[in-house]
Amino acid sequence: MTMNSHLTHFTSDGRPVMVDVSQKEVTERRAIARAKVMMAKATQRAIEEHQFRKGDVIHVAQLAGIMAAKKTSELIPLCHQVPLHHVGIEFSFAEGAEAETSQLTIEATVLTAYQTGVEMEALTAASVAALTVYDMCKSIDKSMVVADLRLIYKEGGKSGVFQAIST
Amino acid sequence: MTMNSHLTHFTSDGRPVMVDVSQKEVTERRAIARAKVMMAKATQRAIEEHQFRKGDVIHVAQLAGIMAAKKTSELIPLCHQVPLHHVGIEFSFAEGAEAETSQLTIEATVLTAYQTGVEMEALTAASVAALTVYDMCKSIDKSMVVADLRLIYKEGGKSGVFQAIST
Amino acid sequence: MTMNSHLTHFTSDGRPVMVDVSQKEVTERRAIARAKVMMAKATQRAIEEHQFRKGDVIHVAQLAGIMAAKKTSELIPLCHQVPLHHVGIEFSFAEGAEAETSQLTIEATVLTAYQTGVEMEALTAASVAALTVYDMCKSIDKSMVVADLRLIYKEGGKSGVFQAIST
Amino acid sequence: MTMNSHLTHFTSDGRPVMVDVSQKEVTERRAIARAKVMMAKATQRAIEEHQFRKGDVIHVAQLAGIMAAKKTSELIPLCHQVPLHHVGIEFSFAEGAEAETSQLTIEATVLTAYQTGVEMEALTAASVAALTVYDMCKSIDKSMVVADLRLIYKEGGKSGVFQAIST
Amino acid sequence: MTMNSHLTHFTSDGRPVMVDVSQKEVTERRAIARAKVMMAKATQRAIEEHQFRKGDVIHVAQLAGIMAAKKTSELIPLCHQVPLHHVGIEFSFAEGAEAETSQLTIEATVLTAYQTGVEMEALTAASVAALTVYDMCKSIDKSMVVADLRLIYKEGGKSGVFQAIST
Amino acid sequence: MTMNSHLTHFTSDGRPVMVDVSQKEVTERRAIARAKVMMAKATQRAIEEHQFRKGDVIHVAQLAGIMAAKKTSELIPLCHQVPLHHVGIEFSFAEGAEAETSQLTIEATVLTAYQTGVEMEALTAASVAALTVYDMCKSIDKSMVVADLRLIYKEGGKSGVFQAIST
Repeated sequence: MTMNSHLTHFTSDGRPVMVDVSQKEVTERRAIARAKVMMAKATQRAIEEHQFRKGDVIHVAQLAGIMAAKKTSELIPLCHQVPLHHVGIEFSFAEGAEAETSQLTIEATVLTAYQTGVEMEALTAASVAALTVYDMCKSIDKSMVVADLRLIYKEGGKSGVFQAIST
Repeated sequence: MTMNSHLTHFTSDGRPVMVDVSQKEVTERRAIARAKVMMAKATQRAIEEHQFRKGDVIHVAQLAGIMAAKKTSELIPLCHQVPLHHVGIEFSFAEGAEAETSQLTIEATVLTAYQTGVEMEALTAASVAALTVYDMCKSIDKSMVVADLRLIYKEGGKSGVFQAIST
Repeated sequence: MTMNSHLTHFTSDGRPVMVDVSQKEVTERRAIARAKVMMAKATQRAIEEHQFRKGDVIHVAQLAGIMAAKKTSELIPLCHQVPLHHVGIEFSFAEGAEAETSQLTIEATVLTAYQTGVEMEALTAASVAALTVYDMCKSIDKSMVVADLRLIYKEGGKSGVFQAIST
Repeated sequence: MTMNSHLTHFTSDGRPVMVDVSQKEVTERRAIARAKVMMAKATQRAIEEHQFRKGDVIHVAQLAGIMAAKKTSELIPLCHQVPLHHVGIEFSFAEGAEAETSQLTIEATVLTAYQTGVEMEALTAASVAALTVYDMCKSIDKSMVVADLRLIYKEGGKSGVFQAIST
Repeated sequence: MTMNSHLTHFTSDGRPVMVDVSQKEVTERRAIARAKVMMAKATQRAIEEHQFRKGDVIHVAQLAGIMAAKKTSELIPLCHQVPLHHVGIEFSFAEGAEAETSQLTIEATVLTAYQTGVEMEALTAASVAALTVYDMCKSIDKSMVVADLRLIYKEGGKSGVFQAIST
Repeated sequence: MTMNSHLTHFTSDGRPVMVDVSQKEVTERRAIARAKVMMAKATQRAIEEHQFRKGDVIHVAQLAGIMAAKKTSELIPLCHQVPLHHVGIEFSFAEGAEAETSQLTIEATVLTAYQTGVEMEALTAASVAALTVYDMCKSIDKSMVVADLRLIYKEGGKSGVFQAIST
């Protein structure tokens, strides 16, 4: 089927497509993504003391991130549907760069054995966990910022290992 | 119904709950969120020249962000289901802080008339748009970073106007 | 926020957007869509005699269409989320234009009171009902065709009544 | 449009339909549903001591129930899409009828203001919370039983107040 | 990454996690779950005579249960996404323990070949089928009770066969 | 478990069931479906000149079709959940049969390696792409018709190759 000339650009350079993975090998794959949420120190204290009307912030965020990882292919249009073997999310607080600032680090790890990787699943888990923290704390701190969301590690598949340089 | 003492902490301080908005007024509400994606200058050029096998990056990201806004209450556990009146997403490139770095700014605007605001819908739209950019460019640049995701404006509802200080 | 010149076409003419309905009035709206499925007469007989391993074709198709209507805003990217007041689907068989051909007409009616219409909901209901008929009969007849899927009526809203000319 | 006689029974007595609520009044509505999960006393102790590899049972179940309430119209085929104003779920342990048995009571409360009630949303919340308890404890106790799942109260709408007789 | 001491309990004992199944073998797995719905005898008669405005109760419930089985990993937060090979649901009526009471037994069978079992899929199918019966009959009988929802059989996987003692 | 005689027809001839594929072989499977959308020539011109307020029609429709393919098992009640290896959609315009009419052909190709085919995924992709075209153009042309939606090719699996006779 040939394309009408007026629409040629959709096929040759701008056409969305879910790329063919049928010739790729099934291999074990792992991806780790990280988000850093900057907040007022008072917000950290409130989180640790479970002072939010909506519930225990970290616990809800953890579950939200895990459930979001399973929804990745519904959110990222050209992602394949990858069955996940494991999703885990860790949280830790540190001092922020500025006084009176705290930094919450969220780290999501995803495993599978499939024909394509799980980078997007790890990034989706970390970002939805971060947004859930925002949702639960926004009544006291609307200025929270997700300051750094990135892939920090991946292994498996033809492109091999990726390790972020400075995290 | 009284809670068993062993589980009391679930009700008094750590219990997740979808808060009651039935006494809140229906008012027009608007929220704007912004994400900044840092990438190599070469990645920006590839985006602008539609060089990606999966399709036109910005177009796909825009659509992904809009569709994600409608899914917010499925992702953020304690969000209400808010019918959206408008979702729009704008993209613009600028020089990054460092040489050889580009910065893609994604700005999502969401409108409704409801009993609760659409901050989370705007943040979800911006972050899923940013992740979609990552997905489509990751074959050439796995080091892209979502460097700054935040609410920049909201109006409507009892808490009134919020304007981020420095964006 | 101004757009980079390289990307201008995304904002001025090709940008996907969920259009703003906040200034539109809430009015009662109704839409009717119709699909015609052409099949072998033997397939019609098998449907009427409940001979399919997957179950009663019409019943499953009816339910599939109703449930799909509720999912319209997840499928059609720029549709608003419209709460539906009623969804009903009717089926009827007639002779097809050619000997040995039957025509199954599927008619979906959707009602709401909202700021935008339900044409897409009615079309989605009719088409998913038609595809479900295909799914359930494809073991004996892969040549079934959805020959005519269209809006046949709508009322409510600023654009008023639409009535298809020949159906 | 008349139905073919062979299919008449689909329209007159057996046809699934999402009933028309467009003439019903928007009123405040509340529903409370309850599930009772019977388990070994050892399972109760393990729940209270957070001994499960998958996490804190009650907390996860609470969140699962709340999120499920928002999905009710996707699960119950002929339910309307009702925007929920509040969802809350309470848990309490009591002695079971038999020695060495514990009973976990789960009570879900849902509020809205709409043209139809939220009984199904409350029942869905309670049952998914109960199933989540099962999921998290099944590694040590596959014999857990949801012994009693029912509506215990509803108010609002034309049919008025319902109060279960013995709970 | 070490956890902040204030949050240690999230990682060591209460943290939700989707457990790693990557070292588990793919084996054929089967699970059967059962729900019993208690209702007035008059409700049974109405079901059998297709007297409900929303449609044929058993047929709709069957389809709802099958579709819900496919949604299990969206409902039960820490469930894996298991591709199902077969879902079937059977219904049967019997006399209830008390005069004027009927008991509808719903039995769901699910098959897969995967690294983890399908107990939750079978339980979800049975419970959503039961809730759908409630939904369709609640206009005449709000006192229906799901009296007994449990796993009755499972096979496959390292833990082997489970058979409920008395059903 | 035997069925009550009153309900026998649900099990023997009319019962919906997700058929068992556990004994079927995993083979590579491909399906191609096609939809033809008839529209006014003026509508074609508007599509090609990106004149629609909602955005670039073809691009949005392409993405909608791809994303819908991934949702097929949520829409078609008795479909299995098939992980897709590739989804691509092509568009082309031709003159319609009547003067002043244009015909937009939409062709969706889907690949997998699984125990059952992807005919429904290809048909769902084509039909949702067609409906999205309708949605984006309906402000100027409500008379657009999906005139011909059918499977045109499939291969893989026990039933072998299917090729539509005249397309």
